[in-house]
Amino acid sequence: MFNITKMKIDKPVSEVFEAFVDPSRIGGFWFSSSSERWEEGKVITLRYDEYEAQGEIYITKIDLNKKIVFHWGANEEGNKVTIILNEQGASKSIIEISEEDFNENDENIISVMLDNKEGWVYMLTCLKGYLEYGVNLRASLIH
Amino acid sequence: MFNITKMKIDKPVSEVFEAFVDPSRIGGFWFSSSSERWEEGKVITLRYDEYEAQGEIYITKIDLNKKIVFHWGANEEGNKVTIILNEQGASKSIIEISEEDFNENDENIISVMLDNKEGWVYMLTCLKGYLEYGVNLRASLIH
Repeated sequence: MFNITKMKIDKPVSEVFEAFVDPSRIGGFWFSSSSERWEEGKVITLRYDEYEAQGEIYITKIDLNKKIVFHWGANEEGNKVTIILNEQGASKSIIEISEEDFNENDENIISVMLDNKEGWVYMLTCLKGYLEYGVNLRASLIH
Repeated sequence: MFNITKMKIDKPVSEVFEAFVDPSRIGGFWFSSSSERWEEGKVITLRYDEYEAQGEIYITKIDLNKKIVFHWGANEEGNKVTIILNEQGASKSIIEISEEDFNENDENIISVMLDNKEGWVYMLTCLKGYLEYGVNLRASLIH
């Protein structure tokens, strides 16, 4: 079981990549803060100040301007997330995010998958608004 | 089986309502065009010029600034969609969209529900960007 979500963003892949890895940018479209720059092998703490929540991710792979792979949590046990940046000419990108390792036997699997899909579509649309227009649309989806 | 999606938008419910029913506004956040103003009992043609696609909706209920109910297609056979606008003070709204009547016996029910969730989250985030900042984020989700 996995979820894949893809978005076209009219910005170069390098800008999209930086938006994820640079802790000064993540608050424009996703979490409120990221503890440090995303690099391979690091465990990063992500905070949602609005919900008084925080969690960790473990980054297992970084290919500059191309790919970011992490697991939710501080090790490789959590679901795996792969962010792939595809260059479309000089200033367009297609961002593909897949999350895998959902438990098919979970009796709530449909609602787990739907909540997960909701989160990724929302984040990617916020990312598009942030990078293309400098607007901040985050923290307004009500669950 | 149903999908519910909720978004906070910092605009009065009257502006959110108009964005849906006024055919000159829908192109800012959802379809490329709407054949006429949405009113109870009407069948409206919605077009996606980008995908050379069009479809109809049958509007069964309109409560000014509060509620819009329609079915996909020209009669009541298609899935039912209910848009509820909740006023939060003078200039904030919570928009709740539910779609129901999915076929539980469909062997592809999970992917049908996920695609449907994707569409609603994307549209509502585009609506937020359009109403709050005047930006157009539509037609960039890749399926």
